[in-house]
Amino acid sequence: MDLQRISSAKSFGGEQAVYAHQSEACACAMRFAVYTPPAGAHGDGPLPALFWLSGLTCTEENFIAKAGAQRAAAELGLVIVAPDTSPRGEGAPDDAQGAYDLGLGAGFYLDATEAPWDRHYNMAAYVADELPALIAERFPVDPGRMGVFGHSMGGHGALTLHLKRPDRFKTCTAFAPIAAPCEVPWGRKAFSAYLGADETAWARYDATRLVAERPSDAHILIDQGDADGFLETQLRPALFAAAAEKAGQALTLRMQAGYDHSYYFIATFIEDHLRWHHERLRDR
Amino acid sequence: MDLQRISSAKSFGGEQAVYAHQSEACACAMRFAVYTPPAGAHGDGPLPALFWLSGLTCTEENFIAKAGAQRAAAELGLVIVAPDTSPRGEGAPDDAQGAYDLGLGAGFYLDATEAPWDRHYNMAAYVADELPALIAERFPVDPGRMGVFGHSMGGHGALTLHLKRPDRFKTCTAFAPIAAPCEVPWGRKAFSAYLGADETAWARYDATRLVAERPSDAHILIDQGDADGFLETQLRPALFAAAAEKAGQALTLRMQAGYDHSYYFIATFIEDHLRWHHERLRDR
Repeated sequence: MDLQRISSAKSFGGEQAVYAHQSEACACAMRFAVYTPPAGAHGDGPLPALFWLSGLTCTEENFIAKAGAQRAAAELGLVIVAPDTSPRGEGAPDDAQGAYDLGLGAGFYLDATEAPWDRHYNMAAYVADELPALIAERFPVDPGRMGVFGHSMGGHGALTLHLKRPDRFKTCTAFAPIAAPCEVPWGRKAFSAYLGADETAWARYDATRLVAERPSDAHILIDQGDADGFLETQLRPALFAAAAEKAGQALTLRMQAGYDHSYYFIATFIEDHLRWHHERLRDR
Repeated sequence: MDLQRISSAKSFGGEQAVYAHQSEACACAMRFAVYTPPAGAHGDGPLPALFWLSGLTCTEENFIAKAGAQRAAAELGLVIVAPDTSPRGEGAPDDAQGAYDLGLGAGFYLDATEAPWDRHYNMAAYVADELPALIAERFPVDPGRMGVFGHSMGGHGALTLHLKRPDRFKTCTAFAPIAAPCEVPWGRKAFSAYLGADETAWARYDATRLVAERPSDAHILIDQGDADGFLETQLRPALFAAAAEKAGQALTLRMQAGYDHSYYFIATFIEDHLRWHHERLRDR
């Protein structure tokens, strides 16, 4: 599998790089970022890896430029992989109106079944299978110690991919996730387009519905700002928390007073999330 | 003086805000960012303040989004003020060719004497006088405990404003500063346009020439990546270090192996710089 390094910068003694490759799942060129901690600082063996899933309108750049995760990743010995949020390569369709919440930058971490999306918009297969295999092959990463986390649309991606594939992503945390997409405008618009009108097909991409059917053995952490303007209209973590409690899913939902939906919120708590994953992955 | 709050986000328990106001020095509306640490966490008295000066093409946004300075500022109790890099308001002229290194985004922290720049391009007066007075009046800041730091063009600004006004900015550090602007293309182009053809007028905006005439009592810290592509063509910290040594200026110049000119370099060492200023300002 050919991997092209687009950029590289030294960061906290390690390397923050961006790569491009030809994706089979998305049938186009895809980009992803990888942070690797200082070589040799954490022993000779492969390291745990976290997959960060970004929110609407983001690319692979937002998280690596704004979250400030490299400091704690360098200290703890964590590789962090941050893919783009949708296919963008040749042939990948966009919303006809260029909406920010459908098409490019809005892949929703699912495998589309409806035209014109179904050929390229296969972000679930990309993130859960193709990319982890590539990372384990080409980077000093232990495929048995992978976790997933993300923000907003990417928090939805993290929760759903973990609940469907706890074997792949053994740990899961989220910032302000779209926690009940079947109930909110962002989710309903995207699922209608990508999955069609039959709502029964939507349930396997809805964290609140998934957790009711198949809670995981992991303890999930969610941080949510109480000054986030999307809290009640688009995110609704309380619905997920109620379903998790009923199903016996271990969950810590922290309502963070005064925080909004921005990367200032993410940066404030990113170290907590890295430590949460590290504690649970390091000795597996 | 009217101050308009453009944005605000909670960050590490404090507030990251952006303000606009009408500047007298620049004769137009100007924007600046202010980070204030968690209220009450550092006693009741006014706090030390650091003025961050950004590099070419930046606005007040780059530093606050990418440097990750808020974490250490919250811990240490430092206010950080980050102005825009040039006038941009109504009437502020730009380079006719739209060059990135002259005009908008390239104010070079000087007071222009040549038309068409002289009416608005007065960033030295703005940063050293107008803005500190405004900050001391409207924020919980001690005007006797102010420091200055910056990156590239802003490192040049920090060194020159400190050396000319050690009473105003008692501490000074820099990342990859344009340390000898009279000797390099970026500096010669800007100074020719803003200050005219007579090079004798340039010396008071050249850190290497200034330090020879008037070293300060402070101990200056400079971090410079040795993989920075601009090191020998545009920055030349060795010229400044030689002049500083000859003049008796206390200086620590750290050549950082493998680091480039990016915010990944800045983020890696920003905590060191905040601690450097804090150590020297806290007990004054």
